[in-house]
Amino acid sequence: MTSTPKYYTQKLRILDLIEDAAPGDPLPTERDLAARFGTSRTTVRQALTELVTEGRIERSQGRGTFVAAPPHITVRQLTSFSEDLSGARLDSDVLGITLETADGEAAAALALAPAAEITRVDRVRRSDGVALARETALLPGRYPGLAAELAQHGSLYRALRERYGVALDAVDDEVGTELAEPAEARILGIEVGRPLLVVRRTGRAADGTPVEFTRSAFRGDRFRFRASTTRG
Amino acid sequence: MTSTPKYYTQKLRILDLIEDAAPGDPLPTERDLAARFGTSRTTVRQALTELVTEGRIERSQGRGTFVAAPPHITVRQLTSFSEDLSGARLDSDVLGITLETADGEAAAALALAPAAEITRVDRVRRSDGVALARETALLPGRYPGLAAELAQHGSLYRALRERYGVALDAVDDEVGTELAEPAEARILGIEVGRPLLVVRRTGRAADGTPVEFTRSAFRGDRFRFRASTTRG
Repeated sequence: MTSTPKYYTQKLRILDLIEDAAPGDPLPTERDLAARFGTSRTTVRQALTELVTEGRIERSQGRGTFVAAPPHITVRQLTSFSEDLSGARLDSDVLGITLETADGEAAAALALAPAAEITRVDRVRRSDGVALARETALLPGRYPGLAAELAQHGSLYRALRERYGVALDAVDDEVGTELAEPAEARILGIEVGRPLLVVRRTGRAADGTPVEFTRSAFRGDRFRFRASTTRG
Repeated sequence: MTSTPKYYTQKLRILDLIEDAAPGDPLPTERDLAARFGTSRTTVRQALTELVTEGRIERSQGRGTFVAAPPHITVRQLTSFSEDLSGARLDSDVLGITLETADGEAAAALALAPAAEITRVDRVRRSDGVALARETALLPGRYPGLAAELAQHGSLYRALRERYGVALDAVDDEVGTELAEPAEARILGIEVGRPLLVVRRTGRAADGTPVEFTRSAFRGDRFRFRASTTRG
């Protein structure tokens, strides 16, 4: 753990190489890089894999490796996801809406009795057709007709407000990093085990009652979460 | 990318195995797990490595593998780091205080002319002696005597306020995930390439002038960032 791994040195050399390159520019092949740096293809491959994970380069099956577009779309606080990425065409696929009983974490976050009834909404959020986030919202109680409302309004917050009279007044966001499991990785178009940026949101009504507990998983190489605060 | 990797199946089986275990309980050896699951030691090792990355288990050289303590210390917003982890004994090692010229990112964040003079403060933040974060603060201009002030006050915010009349009124935090480079990994006691939770903070005085641009890197398996907001 105390010496610099061999691949890391090669990674820095590749970063030097692409420093002034434009998005879409091709990289030399693994074989060429190994020859140029006087190292093994295994070492070069490890360096390239980490650069893919960081979103600096992209691999395209059969076409080669390319310099990636600048990363980092910002996720803002207390906005519906639909308000976050202005300009882009946003939509979502509803994967399922189910009636469940709250597990321990959900019951605690929503201040419910254990095994209370909740509505679970699983969605993939998209921008111009590209998957941005895998999102699971847990809502206390039943929301009859929610599927039709979501199909009509798109925004869950708007559907909650306009159809069910549930308005969000405050949120607690907890942001961490987790490794992508297979289903998430498939949806987000990344490899299993890659870092995700995960936001867990507890949303409350004006009287403080929790109205949602939502986990949103974003690609770690493409997103940052932004929060602004003024000292009271 | 579309099928479940073999190691992932074994990872789920190991998670089942340790579900009811207490922190500090030992896991079977790699050899035993491979025999029990009818798979290779390489596959078991890959599953264990990912569980180490996620902070679920810990490896101790020569002693074996153990169930880890529950992870996730929360980093709150707009508090000095010294106020974040109440209860724990907090301190920091100053790695260096240097006078530099702002690079593009720093100049933009601090609203300075390119190559303007800044003071750079590199620290390791510790709790009860354990490294929590590697932090680099960039401050516009010169802070004569800052090393002595930090040695006396501990808290950078307090030193800025009490000695230099610089009070923080508002912050923008941008939270993302990055991979640990060797020097950071060594300080935080993790392997190179493991995910970090990285907070980039721009702090402003009451008149809106930027007074700090700070990058804090936390172990991704141990920290979450928390932000609360109320709709205005």
